[in-house]
Amino acid sequence: MNFLSEKARTLSPYTAGEQLADKRYVKLNTNENPYPPSPRVGELLRAYDPAALKLYPSPEADALREQIALTEGVGKENVFCGNGSDEVLFLSFAAFFDGTRPVCFADITYSFYEVYANFFGVPVNIAPLKADFSMDLQGMARRDCAGYYIANPNAPTGAGVPLAEMERFIASVPEKLVVADEAYMDFYGESCASLVGKYENLLVMKTFSKSYSLAGIRCGYALGSVKLAEGLRRMKDCMNSYPVDSLCQAVCACALRDRMYHDKTVALVVAERERVRAELLALGFTVPESKANFLFAGRGKKSGEEIYRRLKEEGVLVRFWNKPLLRDFCRITVGTREENDFLLQKLKKILS
Amino acid sequence: MNFLSEKARTLSPYTAGEQLADKRYVKLNTNENPYPPSPRVGELLRAYDPAALKLYPSPEADALREQIALTEGVGKENVFCGNGSDEVLFLSFAAFFDGTRPVCFADITYSFYEVYANFFGVPVNIAPLKADFSMDLQGMARRDCAGYYIANPNAPTGAGVPLAEMERFIASVPEKLVVADEAYMDFYGESCASLVGKYENLLVMKTFSKSYSLAGIRCGYALGSVKLAEGLRRMKDCMNSYPVDSLCQAVCACALRDRMYHDKTVALVVAERERVRAELLALGFTVPESKANFLFAGRGKKSGEEIYRRLKEEGVLVRFWNKPLLRDFCRITVGTREENDFLLQKLKKILS
Repeated sequence: MNFLSEKARTLSPYTAGEQLADKRYVKLNTNENPYPPSPRVGELLRAYDPAALKLYPSPEADALREQIALTEGVGKENVFCGNGSDEVLFLSFAAFFDGTRPVCFADITYSFYEVYANFFGVPVNIAPLKADFSMDLQGMARRDCAGYYIANPNAPTGAGVPLAEMERFIASVPEKLVVADEAYMDFYGESCASLVGKYENLLVMKTFSKSYSLAGIRCGYALGSVKLAEGLRRMKDCMNSYPVDSLCQAVCACALRDRMYHDKTVALVVAERERVRAELLALGFTVPESKANFLFAGRGKKSGEEIYRRLKEEGVLVRFWNKPLLRDFCRITVGTREENDFLLQKLKKILS
Repeated sequence: MNFLSEKARTLSPYTAGEQLADKRYVKLNTNENPYPPSPRVGELLRAYDPAALKLYPSPEADALREQIALTEGVGKENVFCGNGSDEVLFLSFAAFFDGTRPVCFADITYSFYEVYANFFGVPVNIAPLKADFSMDLQGMARRDCAGYYIANPNAPTGAGVPLAEMERFIASVPEKLVVADEAYMDFYGESCASLVGKYENLLVMKTFSKSYSLAGIRCGYALGSVKLAEGLRRMKDCMNSYPVDSLCQAVCACALRDRMYHDKTVALVVAERERVRAELLALGFTVPESKANFLFAGRGKKSGEEIYRRLKEEGVLVRFWNKPLLRDFCRITVGTREENDFLLQKLKKILS
């Protein structure tokens, strides 16, 4: 017997970066932050009363949403939390798109968007990047669609769209929903969060997985009008009443309160990003300017696949996609200074 | 502008039990365990290295699945973990059901099944319970459908189906998928987990939210053939690569290893369930025999709604549904001895 649904038989799932345990790697393949979370998170865990875990979590993550609202300068009712921004993205496809009109995103961007569209039977309208890897927002604005997913900064290129340009785009398509996926925004500083009260067609997505060093705890959030937040909540309540666990809510609120630590580690990553990029350029790679915590490097003396494979042999994991436009490149997460030095040393060895 | 999809505009979400914070209640409305989780969970939290949270979790929850496999006597490849058994149920609708053939479940059962079916456009075939609140499995076997959701013990009635009867049912419908939702099974002890290797049309669902006192951490799992587990994994990877966070994986594995504590608290709850049921019967309520950690009590001198409302005024939360067949009853979670005494004292006051 084959009990699989048509979805389960035919859809192509997303492929996440490798999480290998066969040996110790310098892990620069899934854009994690190389620094630990705020020391206050450790204090919280040591003081946490485990008896609290016998009860279901706050279904709408009330205290966490309050803290997010404070940090982002929006109302609590404009915030929606989920089990990683991936879950919030998934719910947003269910809440705002149908089979009736396409959703538009770039040809090179976060590859989960297409998986979500296929899962919900939403047609896709794919917009090619420009030759310099930037997004063609003016061209996208003219496309026939119900809305957009704009990863800003974009993955895996690292290209960023300045806030003013995003605002012009959002204002130019008032009848279409613009989802600004800002997973990496804290490494750039041009967030659309301040526009949430101004444009009802804007939904901003953020995550604790990158700049807050909490990929292991799984929490992301959306900021938007009360109507959009309510749409997400309705879809959540068709799936899982309590997607964000109690410990996760407490840990994320705690990390938000330690703004100084956050900003300090972000600054360290940004400084290393610029240093590593200069070194990669000197090694002959093409490396578009990155506003994220990773670099997209390629078109050098060796193919993307060979760089990926040889680095893996040398104990460094980076991300490679064997796909058109992407296969000339590798995506390299910015690590600590020591990790980056190790990477650069191995790259020099491979290229020599 | 209305940016909501047809799903978001038309579906009726699940309504979870109240999580009120306006005053302190004796909370007997969402079937949580009144005892805290194993003391080892507290030890784990105090010793946990927060730096581990900077990395993504094991996407397939490897170490936790190994521990579940050991506990359940199945292979690791037969185990699938999710963010609460609600998420696993959601994914199972996507993985195993289409719009082509109906899914069958009882008229009185976990109300999320119908929400999931509607979300994925799966037609439903509703089977009435018998007058004694037991499930009519023989009648259900003859229904035209692609598969079944059998909550065992059932909610909110607490009625249980013995293992031998479940096996006869599963064997009688080899071409249909039987999902045995065993969220409350540890309070009964007639799990189908031992049949997983024998019947490829069986999927068993369990949760850490009830007998393990970990509703706050959000973890549930399914046991089934490699093909069924793979179907769930494919759907997970269309939604969220890492639904179970690292702390959650560690906490649940830790709770599983403390079998003695688990069995001790389960025995306490079962003993209290029988004591409270006898008292409720003596107060004139109809109370079907319960195999779960709650009692379904009603048809007494006051309506279900009045009992619910008066208890709430007195500081006790129980669950009430204003729906046909259910509105004569309240569902009362079994608490600690002290909580149950408080409930019984308030009930006597209300009835006098």
